[in-house]
Amino acid sequence: MKKANLLYAQSGGVTAVINATAAGVIEAARARSDAIGAILAARHGILGALDEALVDTRVLTDEDLRRLAATPGGAFGSCRFDLDPPDANPAQYDRLFAVFAAHDVGYFLYNGGNGSMDTVAKLSRAAAARGYPLVCVGVPKTVDNDLEGTDCSPGFGSAAKYVATSMLEAGLDLAAMTSRVGRTFVMEVMGRNAGWIAAATALAARDADGPPHLILMPEVAFDEGAFLAAVEATVARLGYCAITVSEGIRRADGSFLMEQHQDAKGHIQLGGAGQCVARLIHARLGYKHHWAIPDYLQRAAGHLLSATDHAQAVAVGRAAVEYALAGHDGVMPAIRRLGDAPYRWDVVPVPVAAIANLERRVPADFIRPDGLHVTDFARRYLRPLIEGEIASRFSGGLPDYPRFVLPTVPRRLVPHRP
Amino acid sequence: MKKANLLYAQSGGVTAVINATAAGVIEAARARSDAIGAILAARHGILGALDEALVDTRVLTDEDLRRLAATPGGAFGSCRFDLDPPDANPAQYDRLFAVFAAHDVGYFLYNGGNGSMDTVAKLSRAAAARGYPLVCVGVPKTVDNDLEGTDCSPGFGSAAKYVATSMLEAGLDLAAMTSRVGRTFVMEVMGRNAGWIAAATALAARDADGPPHLILMPEVAFDEGAFLAAVEATVARLGYCAITVSEGIRRADGSFLMEQHQDAKGHIQLGGAGQCVARLIHARLGYKHHWAIPDYLQRAAGHLLSATDHAQAVAVGRAAVEYALAGHDGVMPAIRRLGDAPYRWDVVPVPVAAIANLERRVPADFIRPDGLHVTDFARRYLRPLIEGEIASRFSGGLPDYPRFVLPTVPRRLVPHRP
Repeated sequence: MKKANLLYAQSGGVTAVINATAAGVIEAARARSDAIGAILAARHGILGALDEALVDTRVLTDEDLRRLAATPGGAFGSCRFDLDPPDANPAQYDRLFAVFAAHDVGYFLYNGGNGSMDTVAKLSRAAAARGYPLVCVGVPKTVDNDLEGTDCSPGFGSAAKYVATSMLEAGLDLAAMTSRVGRTFVMEVMGRNAGWIAAATALAARDADGPPHLILMPEVAFDEGAFLAAVEATVARLGYCAITVSEGIRRADGSFLMEQHQDAKGHIQLGGAGQCVARLIHARLGYKHHWAIPDYLQRAAGHLLSATDHAQAVAVGRAAVEYALAGHDGVMPAIRRLGDAPYRWDVVPVPVAAIANLERRVPADFIRPDGLHVTDFARRYLRPLIEGEIASRFSGGLPDYPRFVLPTVPRRLVPHRP
Repeated sequence: MKKANLLYAQSGGVTAVINATAAGVIEAARARSDAIGAILAARHGILGALDEALVDTRVLTDEDLRRLAATPGGAFGSCRFDLDPPDANPAQYDRLFAVFAAHDVGYFLYNGGNGSMDTVAKLSRAAAARGYPLVCVGVPKTVDNDLEGTDCSPGFGSAAKYVATSMLEAGLDLAAMTSRVGRTFVMEVMGRNAGWIAAATALAARDADGPPHLILMPEVAFDEGAFLAAVEATVARLGYCAITVSEGIRRADGSFLMEQHQDAKGHIQLGGAGQCVARLIHARLGYKHHWAIPDYLQRAAGHLLSATDHAQAVAVGRAAVEYALAGHDGVMPAIRRLGDAPYRWDVVPVPVAAIANLERRVPADFIRPDGLHVTDFARRYLRPLIEGEIASRFSGGLPDYPRFVLPTVPRRLVPHRP
């Protein structure tokens, strides 16, 4: 009997450890060459599958995989693209299954967030409806930590470590620059609807007076008066105030603080919440103000990985292969927390249909009653996720990330015009 | 004969290695206890000297000094404050010398940039005019790398390593997210009048197509048409374009690109050049756009120090003590480059009067003829400055920066109202 091939693809915003998951998938699949044929990857996610733009991972040596696992970005390319509902666009699915059939794909592993889990659910149902023998497995990834069904999402821990380190370091700078007129620093982090990354900056504080002094999350409506009073009280006490702002914070009426900008498809591009807050402080309280926007830097910092996050990223990749071979269609390997101190976890399957398109937000008991900081529950949850370091390899003063030239698998179909 | 005391102070924007200089000063001064009495530090620079807010560094153990040397921020506090001209405000100088006399200060070491070297020059002249026995030595520090008389400034190499690493990492993210409509990323870095930090991001590029694809420096007037054409050509070739922007870029008529904001003293606060450029690209070319502003993060990244920069920061601190003891009044230890490959350097004294208030800008032969990138001359100059790594100590997932509680020296004068 011919062995089915495995197709892996990356989706959504990439993370500092999505390639660790890729390495975990490839290593685990190689170890099961008894059951799996070629290990293919699609270029730019499901778009590459539709386009029959596939690469063969065979050229990657074991050493390449070790280095890939510590390289940020998405080695195979990612995409922001949702499949249409099967009824609305059957031609799209015809094409996808034609590509799968042409390349003997029997296992499809999709590495992404909420939207990607919906893609897995759709493909799983479509394959069943067509009688195509496919096992679809979702593999979790998102810096936003907003996937339901898992204790945390690979990618988050490293982003959390980066933003907490950045707040700690910027806070030392700020403390040194204290001036008599008051000085404030605002760091805007990612998080449209969930304040997980913002909450993680709380880990930088080593005591009640340590930065960040205030944390604004999308889960809490922005109350200008209460916020400014808290800034003023902090500056009165310390001479300065450091504030973390999620990009997606909004007022009680639901309006975003940042300037909005809609792209052609109507998606709202956020940006500017930190600047808006910094300028508000300056205008109303007269303090000096600086703001930082790490943007991509917070999800690409391969030089500052969380070893915990990295281990979990590899583990979900390995588990996904195991589930695929066991015929667990439509599931996602999830991180289950078994204990806080010492931190213990394992990986368990959860059905993607139950979690697709949901958004896990920071729970109420993680948020301080005044809505301007987090609680010890949050710290206990967050701390282990940033722990552990991985020494980077440097060359010429910079991280020595490898570049791989991956051969494209010859096309077997006529090109597709989507 | 009573030994004179040494007073050290930090001035201007702090850096990731200004505390390494402090450690170098203290270690070298301790080694010369035959000639130096107490080793004091002023809180918040010259303001602490005026205020008689002094600390005794005696409590710091050798291990404390080793850890201090790898801690960002300014351990003693810094300030942005210029002394008035002696003729305009003799009372200010009366107070300063009263504090010096009350604490037997015979050596004053001021660690800062261009403005601080002017303070050293003023104090040196004022001491001579009053017949006060003081040796004043400037100690270089600035992430901007704009001090004249020295091949580079301590603080710059670590900032350069941080921004180059950030561009490399963000570039990997950007490459993975390439979309059919074109994607751009703009990183705004520090640099009001000099593009050194922006230029350093060029080190991230591993070939002609590596990010950053374009670098905008204040030395070159911003030409919108030429810039947009270069962005368009890059996106046509690669699908994406990464751009570094100095905060202080301006148009041919001298106007700044960013939104301006003047503080109460008329100083212009910059910010927004990156956002302005990103939005211009989107408005004119329709590409997706992201922008990052590392702000304080780029000068506080103690977790990513350049070992070269760190060694030079320590060396100028040690040399400053040596010069002070040799009676070299009004000088600054400067880095002299002896060779590029292998990189060799030493430390030599330069008179502060010759360099105070000057600004060293990126020279023409470091800038590509089209004004949109750097040359190989620039790369050859920059590369050694970011080389070498220093392993950080971590605790709980974060850099384990020490906190020191330093005892204030009892006041001997009545409080001063400036």
